[in-house]
Amino acid sequence: MSAWVLPDHIADVLPSEARHIEEIRRNLLDMARCYGYELVMPPLLEHLESLLTGTGEALDLQTFKLVDQISGRMMGLRADSTPQVARIDAHLLNRAGVTRLCYCGPVLHTRPAAPHATREPLQLGAEIYGHAGLEADLEILELALDSLRAAKVDVLAVDLADVRIVNALLSQTTLSPQQTADVHAALASKDASALGALTTHAPADIAAALQHLTQLYGDASILEEARRVLPALPQIHEALDQLQWLAGHIEGASVSFDLADLRGYAYYSGARFAVYAAGAPDALVRGGRYDAVGSVFGRKRPAVGFSLDIKALVVAAGVPALRAAIRAPWGEDRSLRDVIAQLRAAGETVVCVLPGHESEVDEFQCDRELVQRDAVWCVTAL
Amino acid sequence: MSAWVLPDHIADVLPSEARHIEEIRRNLLDMARCYGYELVMPPLLEHLESLLTGTGEALDLQTFKLVDQISGRMMGLRADSTPQVARIDAHLLNRAGVTRLCYCGPVLHTRPAAPHATREPLQLGAEIYGHAGLEADLEILELALDSLRAAKVDVLAVDLADVRIVNALLSQTTLSPQQTADVHAALASKDASALGALTTHAPADIAAALQHLTQLYGDASILEEARRVLPALPQIHEALDQLQWLAGHIEGASVSFDLADLRGYAYYSGARFAVYAAGAPDALVRGGRYDAVGSVFGRKRPAVGFSLDIKALVVAAGVPALRAAIRAPWGEDRSLRDVIAQLRAAGETVVCVLPGHESEVDEFQCDRELVQRDAVWCVTAL
Repeated sequence: MSAWVLPDHIADVLPSEARHIEEIRRNLLDMARCYGYELVMPPLLEHLESLLTGTGEALDLQTFKLVDQISGRMMGLRADSTPQVARIDAHLLNRAGVTRLCYCGPVLHTRPAAPHATREPLQLGAEIYGHAGLEADLEILELALDSLRAAKVDVLAVDLADVRIVNALLSQTTLSPQQTADVHAALASKDASALGALTTHAPADIAAALQHLTQLYGDASILEEARRVLPALPQIHEALDQLQWLAGHIEGASVSFDLADLRGYAYYSGARFAVYAAGAPDALVRGGRYDAVGSVFGRKRPAVGFSLDIKALVVAAGVPALRAAIRAPWGEDRSLRDVIAQLRAAGETVVCVLPGHESEVDEFQCDRELVQRDAVWCVTAL
Repeated sequence: MSAWVLPDHIADVLPSEARHIEEIRRNLLDMARCYGYELVMPPLLEHLESLLTGTGEALDLQTFKLVDQISGRMMGLRADSTPQVARIDAHLLNRAGVTRLCYCGPVLHTRPAAPHATREPLQLGAEIYGHAGLEADLEILELALDSLRAAKVDVLAVDLADVRIVNALLSQTTLSPQQTADVHAALASKDASALGALTTHAPADIAAALQHLTQLYGDASILEEARRVLPALPQIHEALDQLQWLAGHIEGASVSFDLADLRGYAYYSGARFAVYAAGAPDALVRGGRYDAVGSVFGRKRPAVGFSLDIKALVVAAGVPALRAAIRAPWGEDRSLRDVIAQLRAAGETVVCVLPGHESEVDEFQCDRELVQRDAVWCVTAL
């Protein structure tokens, strides 16, 4: 096979898209900084147990494994940075108070997460550690929405869910881990009949409640319906109250609910959100609360955060303005070199035409030219 | 072993250093843009033969290998981006004229390149394709020097070399590939006796010339000496003429020569340079001409470029100014939320103190506070 063929779901990013990705990357990191989030850079490679502990099977299957030639131990390529940032909060920073962290870097997946997804997303995320209150959930949600707006993405809807509702119901049953996984799958696909078959031996009210869950998606009215049809378990009512509070504070986007939604990694422990935008088939941002994620690193702290893939974002983002450039001749003339240096210092792009290439079509977007008139160099329109 | 222990020569980058790395990354990419270099983002993973073709054993040993679950083929994690960018120029862009490309991203090494080196450098580089003349070599060298200055690095010296000199001498011998590799090693360590033992069967003038090479390092005077003591082979004189021209055009850095220097990857084909700076044990930038690097992708084009590791650069770089922040209370008050949004839109960092954490030492650098006076929110010094 030709040496230039890339693996499936792996691609080069060419100049125009790369420039756009870099622009969005900077805007989003600047937005996180404005909110007071400190940048960290966890490594691409870690010991496998550091990457996978407590994060469930989905992440394990997504993670490339290789052997460390130095130690002989198994290492993994990160498929998700969240457990790494939790490790940094728990072990390296180990602060008593609230810690806000953000990150941006590639992650690698053994198989694409969706039929047309890349196996090398550029993951950007932000997280708050140390605050259990909803104010942290709201700040993360607001930062996620502001980030999409900074990328000129047309935000359509915020979808809210809470894993505690399903967990509270299943805690009333004696299902095996495998059966529980099957129930999660049936709920995800809203497959009421499969759900019925799986819960024949569950308490009648729980089985009925799970059936109801497959219908409990839509606008705020379903919160009221949920209070009516779901068992009066304290975790369920706390979850419904919190979803209502969050929904009431979200500005500039319509809010919907899906109480059966369990998508994403297994580390979520409370309210969750997904943000949908025009031109994007799947959610562009997923986030929520995962209070237990740092416990394996010796420090169970309240945690809430979001992550997104800038490569997916750029498809839905508004097209950036093209940066124009100045074409200049190549020469050893001191005055020419000084003028070029001054223009570049002022932020201008100055492309020197190398000897013998004068007639070439300039690939860069040159709208001006540096020419000499009466021994003086000046910029003129092309 | 504890889950938080990282593999050897793999490290997290914590906030203060991460902020500095991000700042340098932006400055260097902006500098390349000012010179007219277009940004590309090659993937971390490729088929092994795409990454390794024609790049020699050193790169092969540095490259992590893993199996593609989709195709069953061997893939490699890039240990150097240069062959990838050559592939992009040759196959994807396939332009007739001069093409300037730059890139910035992590590369991974199976073993550290130096005793204290990271196995995950953040490689940034720039390359010109399509121009065989020295003007391209000079532009790349000038961009490399301007990049170090943009990172507030105190440039000490530029070291020039040219692989054509050693190659021209060895082309006059019948050494086996292994013997040739041994000669390269002896030259690198300037081991005259080992060199003598390896060249006992070589022509006397070539053996003598190789002995001379171990002494041919220092200031411009060694170019004259080289002309005297080295055989009058055309490639050698062309190389010496070009090194002299380049040295004459370098501004703002002292220039030295090391005609036996063969360090780095095997793809170099002409003049090479290494840039040294205060506070850095090894060269911070290595670059030069590698005209054959794209040939395996069906397009042998003149090519010259450089690369550097931002993680190594940041150690030698001047410390950046700390960005101050504003502390604000958390509240649902519309006027408070509006003021915070305005401050952030103006580029200020505003950290909201979450309820219950008022007494905490703020980890962010807050020098001002948002307080309410007579129903008006105003920023006051702390």
